[in-house]
Order: sequence, then structure tokens, then C-alpha cells
Amino acid sequence: MKVIVDLCLVPMGVGVSVSKYVAACHKVLQEEGLEITLHAYGTNIEGEWDVVMDAVKKCHERIHDMGAPRITTTMKMGTRIDRSQSMADKVDSVLSRLADEV
Amino acid sequence: MKVIVDLCLVPMGVGVSVSKYVAACHKVLQEEGLEITLHAYGTNIEGEWDVVMDAVKKCHERIHDMGAPRITTTMKMGTRIDRSQSMADKVDSVLSRLADEV
Amino acid sequence: MKVIVDLCLVPMGVGVSVSKYVAACHKVLQEEGLEITLHAYGTNIEGEWDVVMDAVKKCHERIHDMGAPRITTTMKMGTRIDRSQSMADKVDSVLSRLADEV
Amino acid sequence: MKVIVDLCLVPMGVGVSVSKYVAACHKVLQEEGLEITLHAYGTNIEGEWDVVMDAVKKCHERIHDMGAPRITTTMKMGTRIDRSQSMADKVDSVLSRLADEV
Repeated sequence: MKVIVDLCLVPMGVGVSVSKYVAACHKVLQEEGLEITLHAYGTNIEGEWDVVMDAVKKCHERIHDMGAPRITTTMKMGTRIDRSQSMADKVDSVLSRLADEV
Repeated sequence: MKVIVDLCLVPMGVGVSVSKYVAACHKVLQEEGLEITLHAYGTNIEGEWDVVMDAVKKCHERIHDMGAPRITTTMKMGTRIDRSQSMADKVDSVLSRLADEV
Repeated sequence: MKVIVDLCLVPMGVGVSVSKYVAACHKVLQEEGLEITLHAYGTNIEGEWDVVMDAVKKCHERIHDMGAPRITTTMKMGTRIDRSQSMADKVDSVLSRLADEV
Repeated sequence: MKVIVDLCLVPMGVGVSVSKYVAACHKVLQEEGLEITLHAYGTNIEGEWDVVMDAVKKCHERIHDMGAPRITTTMKMGTRIDRSQSMADKVDSVLSRLADEV
């Protein structure tokens, strides 16, 4: 089962700047071979369910190892069985709607 | 690693009423032996990371088997390594703050 | 337009314990006269869209006033025009499904 | 108060394809003069709190007017008072961390 995920991991108890933790997550996800896209409020991930969820767990473990005592993560997860759809397809289908209406 | 999760699974392409799908998820989570609490916009779950995430996957699979072509799930996931904290502890710590101030 | 909201406000840069901020939010929401229910990973709120959103803004302002330099909030918001549905109705419709199957 | 938002609006009861509704939201947000970035699982928005929240309400209203009987939206909202930070700043701060480590 393929999944498209939007991941936003927030370390707590480490002060106000969290970019080094987000960067560490980014590297974990890349190490796992996942296709990812960083945006201003999270990271989009595409892959097989088990691989993606295993990578998210590794992110929590890595961030705790870096010293964060507490983490709260918000995640959206989309699956569909009617057809395959990539992250790029999702954006394209909206953009083509917008283009049609010009 | 223990995790506290807030799960909100939304089947798409099945019409406007989704309670039978939420009920089916509820049963999956119970079958997995997890401690759960239903609320008006999701289900709180407490357990070991792997058990919880496996159950969430089973929810997606069950809902697709019931005929939902597409699912979008929103999930919050909290982990901490400084101390153990249950779902009840989280609510109690807020309520005791409120009581202190009366 | 009525809305049912699940609000989870996370102050950042204030250490690992956030219960006093959650309690402060709780009081803001009550001061605004909203119907609310606390759960282990957020607060459910029911009311008119403008009243609810104004209260959420006041929560951010109050938490900043208490010294939190940064806040990240996750919110789910449900509206429907086919029929009216309260928070209690949502829970009841799932519970009655579960009861039917016993 | 400035806010950075990640908005993901899901119309329910309209079938499995929702791109035309996402495109309609996109246009509402642009009509309101907001700076927005579409990604594979939502739209990032930057602006003054009241302007952004008013635009989100208009999105719900527009999507209901298009015939969607029910909407569930997931939104992340970030505010900070220690310094100003744009959506581009957030991405840049992570990318510069990644670059530093090469």
C-alpha cells in the first residue's frame, strides 16, 4: 500500500529554534531512500506504507537521541486504491484545473 | 517507545456519513488490544509505537476493504523520554492547573 | 456557519511542560462562552465560526502574553450544511453503530 | 499578528476527486491577496491573522456553495513574537543546516 504523507515533527523542550532537528529528520528520510519535498510547514513523503512509517519512527528516535525530551508530530496520510497517484500528480491535477479556467 | 496518538481517519468517495467507517476503526483498534478513547473529532490511542502504527495500517486496510476508494488521515503523535505519561495523566495535569486557580 | 473544531496549541521555547498554557487556553475558551471538551491530545470546541476563530486568536495572544515566543497549533475544523450536528451527535452516531453490531 | 498556515481542506460527499475544490480554494486565497504556495498535501499561506482566517472561512463558504455538503479541514498555524519569519525563511533555515553539514 502506497502512502503520501505530510510530516511535521516538533521537538519540545529544546528552545525556540528547531531547524537543526528538521534537518536531521530530512537526512533520516533521505537515508531511507524516500522521495521527499520540504515545504514551509512540513515535509511531503511518498513511498510504501511500511517504509514511510519506519522512517517516521527513526525520525522520532533520532530527535530524541539529539536531546529532545519530548516530540509532538502532526501527520497527514493519504492512501487510495482506485488508482495510483504521486505527489506530483496531486499538484498537477490542481494546477491543470486552474489553467483550464484562465 | 510509547506513543500517544490522536487519530482522525476520513474515508473519501463514500458519501457524507462516515460513522460506520469510524466504528470499524474503533473495532480494529480494540482487536489490537489498544487503550482508546473516542472523542468528537478523532480517537486517542495509547500504546507501544509499533503496535499503534500497525493498528493504524490495519484501519486503512479495513476501510479500503469496506469499499472506500480513498482515505485521508490526520494524526498527532506524541513521544517523550523524560518521563512516562498516560493519556489520563495529560488530562489530569491540565485539570489540576485549572483547579489550582479557583 | 457552525463549526466543530479540534484544537491543539503547542507553545515552543518554554520547556517541556505545557499544561499551564493549555489550562490558560481552556479558560480563554470558557470566557468566550464556548462549549468545549478537553481530551488527551487537544480540545474540542463547538460554536459559530467567527466566535470560535476569534477565541483561537485570543488563545494565541494569551499564550504569547504569558511568555511563549513561538506557538504551533494544529486544528481540525468541520462544517456541514446538510444538517446540524453537535459534538455529542458525532460521538453518539459512532457509538450507536458499535452497539448495533453487538 | 502574522501567521504562517498550512491548510488542507477536504470536501466530503462529493466523490473521490477533489481537485476542482482545491483549485477553487486556491483562487479564493489569491483573491484575498495572500501569499500562497501549493504543495502535495495542502497549501501554505502567509499573512496577517485576520486576513488569513477570513480567507479560510471564505474557502469553506465557497466549497459549500459549489455543492459540498460537508468539509473537514486540517490546519497548522504558526505565530512567533521573538522575530519575524517568512515561509521562505523557514525553508531556508533548514536548507542552510543541511548545506552546513556537507
